[in-house]
Amino acid sequence: MAPLMTQTLTSWVPVAVGSPFPVSNLPYGVFVTGQDQLRPRIGVAIGDFVLDAGALASAQRLPYAIALTAPSLNAFMALGPPIWNDFRRRLTACLTDEAHRPVVEPLLVPLSAAELRLAFDVADYVDFYASEQHATNLGRILRPGQPPLLPNWKHVPVGYHGRAGTVRVSGTPVRRPHGQRLPEGNVAPTVGPSQRLDFEAEVGFVVGIGSELGRPVPLADFASHVFGVCLVNDWSARDIQAWEYQPLGPLLGKSFLTSVSSWVVPLAALEAARVTPPQRDPPVAGYLDDADHPWGLDLALTICLNGQPVSRPPFREMYWTAAQQLAHLTVNGASLRTGDLFASGTVSGRLPDQYGSLMELSWGGQQPLKLGNGGTRTFLEDGDEVVITARASGADGAPIGFGDVRGRVG
Amino acid sequence: MAPLMTQTLTSWVPVAVGSPFPVSNLPYGVFVTGQDQLRPRIGVAIGDFVLDAGALASAQRLPYAIALTAPSLNAFMALGPPIWNDFRRRLTACLTDEAHRPVVEPLLVPLSAAELRLAFDVADYVDFYASEQHATNLGRILRPGQPPLLPNWKHVPVGYHGRAGTVRVSGTPVRRPHGQRLPEGNVAPTVGPSQRLDFEAEVGFVVGIGSELGRPVPLADFASHVFGVCLVNDWSARDIQAWEYQPLGPLLGKSFLTSVSSWVVPLAALEAARVTPPQRDPPVAGYLDDADHPWGLDLALTICLNGQPVSRPPFREMYWTAAQQLAHLTVNGASLRTGDLFASGTVSGRLPDQYGSLMELSWGGQQPLKLGNGGTRTFLEDGDEVVITARASGADGAPIGFGDVRGRVG
Repeated sequence: MAPLMTQTLTSWVPVAVGSPFPVSNLPYGVFVTGQDQLRPRIGVAIGDFVLDAGALASAQRLPYAIALTAPSLNAFMALGPPIWNDFRRRLTACLTDEAHRPVVEPLLVPLSAAELRLAFDVADYVDFYASEQHATNLGRILRPGQPPLLPNWKHVPVGYHGRAGTVRVSGTPVRRPHGQRLPEGNVAPTVGPSQRLDFEAEVGFVVGIGSELGRPVPLADFASHVFGVCLVNDWSARDIQAWEYQPLGPLLGKSFLTSVSSWVVPLAALEAARVTPPQRDPPVAGYLDDADHPWGLDLALTICLNGQPVSRPPFREMYWTAAQQLAHLTVNGASLRTGDLFASGTVSGRLPDQYGSLMELSWGGQQPLKLGNGGTRTFLEDGDEVVITARASGADGAPIGFGDVRGRVG
Repeated sequence: MAPLMTQTLTSWVPVAVGSPFPVSNLPYGVFVTGQDQLRPRIGVAIGDFVLDAGALASAQRLPYAIALTAPSLNAFMALGPPIWNDFRRRLTACLTDEAHRPVVEPLLVPLSAAELRLAFDVADYVDFYASEQHATNLGRILRPGQPPLLPNWKHVPVGYHGRAGTVRVSGTPVRRPHGQRLPEGNVAPTVGPSQRLDFEAEVGFVVGIGSELGRPVPLADFASHVFGVCLVNDWSARDIQAWEYQPLGPLLGKSFLTSVSSWVVPLAALEAARVTPPQRDPPVAGYLDDADHPWGLDLALTICLNGQPVSRPPFREMYWTAAQQLAHLTVNGASLRTGDLFASGTVSGRLPDQYGSLMELSWGGQQPLKLGNGGTRTFLEDGDEVVITARASGADGAPIGFGDVRGRVG
């Protein structure tokens, strides 16, 4: 499962060394330009450019061009792996073979001139809780003196439905949510702005091909359903959540905003990043057994707060993979739809500088995080900007990036 | 707030005494006919007929006719109260004034010839937990010896997001879900079909007009956003839910199916059913104070199991109203979308024959419910059919019905 070093693909489009968007990536997004604000369209990132995917598909008279001229990825995602792969092959050919340059070059828009929009219409959004370190940290902080992991955690990929309607694109301003919270020592709640506003660095998976009610999707079929991968910041109001969450889980503590990266990286671009996930002990139920279909992914996340790196969570350590999560989501017969988004849960590694939330980085607010500029943080302050990025290695060894998921409070 | 007895409206369409669909109701649905299976269209129920709403609007050359010729209610719901009210006035005139009969009569389809579809595209689905008796019963069953209500319950309208993609129309078969559950006395789960399959009788509210991110919707604006009311059966696998739900709430125990009635009753038809909700003690937070906007609703629910009435839950006793729930859902700045559905939670009255779930009717399976035919039930068996209906009083005293929400297991 080690990344294969194959021949480096070279595009005639200039791609800087270390660019997150080499020709082995080709992530999808939706963009508008200053001249064309009212016409959101599908683009593919290459170097410092966006290729107008619908225009290319139309120029090539592809039978599925209409799906690529839509204002969101959903129609294209609904076409399935044969079409996803066909278009990826054509994109690769167009961007590596100089013969295509006369047709393709006019369809490139500088990234700096493109305004990125939410790439897909979110159907249902489910957020998991798949990092053992994160669940352990939360247990230690919230239930000191008790076993940090609840009895179900190593059996069930624990998750909950979030609010699809407040999933927004990277850059959306983060308004500090108001709500009820129980100040320490009180018996009655107060209402006001959250005082424990936090980020959660996560990785999201976007469903292309839906499924029928009553038909579980086996783990082996993961890549037949999932189109691609994005970054997620599951903004959280810890105080609102702490007061509301019993017994039915988080609602307002999470529903005010969930940010996703502008770019969705096709699963095909991450083939070389696949790794064996951690050993599970005790063994998992049969429908979650992934010995033959390991979907660990070696993604290196970085969280920057006001421009300073504060954590580098390693996604490869996640206990539950996205393939297990998809099998779990449907084992009861629940159906999938194009545009379903499910996220990993906070990615936290074993080391304190690998934790994926301020809740953990400041240990529940008890140990303020020291910032590089001399400041400290327990939770987010107005004006703070959080930027999450991630890198994987592509088949040719070039970095695969996701752009970023970014948001400023206030 | 007592129902006003105004002059009875009479339609030239024959409406049997006691029909759930008198001219003071006029609920909306989406239907197809045997001849026209591929053209779902919006209909309005009157007596034993469905009026083709799009055809009527087109015949009258209404400026919003295109919204009524859609295959779901969403476009019409998105137009807002002035248009909802305008069309309701026109419908009433068309169905009460004989002068319209020559144009309207050909647009009537016998209900028996109409196949009803899901009336609206569900955006986000939130399920609340608003019956004090239900929450108390569950507390007594699941946490005996402890205070039955958790400390937040009388402060927060507790709820969670459910799966919008598995909300289906009444009549959809109920497949018994598989999943993990922890048999009593075990430490490790087993996987298999749920052995504690249950219904939950609820009332649902459908959002017509959305809201902006960051802008809470005050309680007073309830009727400016909510289009109508339907019945909901929140099918539940108690054993799957019991094992999975800590700490993030129910997921697979609920996500396999949620059934809604075919008909959405306009809020305007329920004006006479408004009642003062129960006194709240302790007082609720300001944004939940509904003294000036009481939205208790006097709906009498009936639950039939295999044709026998097993419970008659009174919706008027619900502790939290839908207006409070909407204010709560958005107090953190979360936005609404056309098609958002939020449900009341299980409706349970104070008397044992008013409980809204088998969990309560059989007291956690410990006291099998006796059925009229000599049988008993703890939880649902294969072949069981559950039918939930409800009645209110219209402005003219005629009953306002919702059709039913029906489902058979297996």
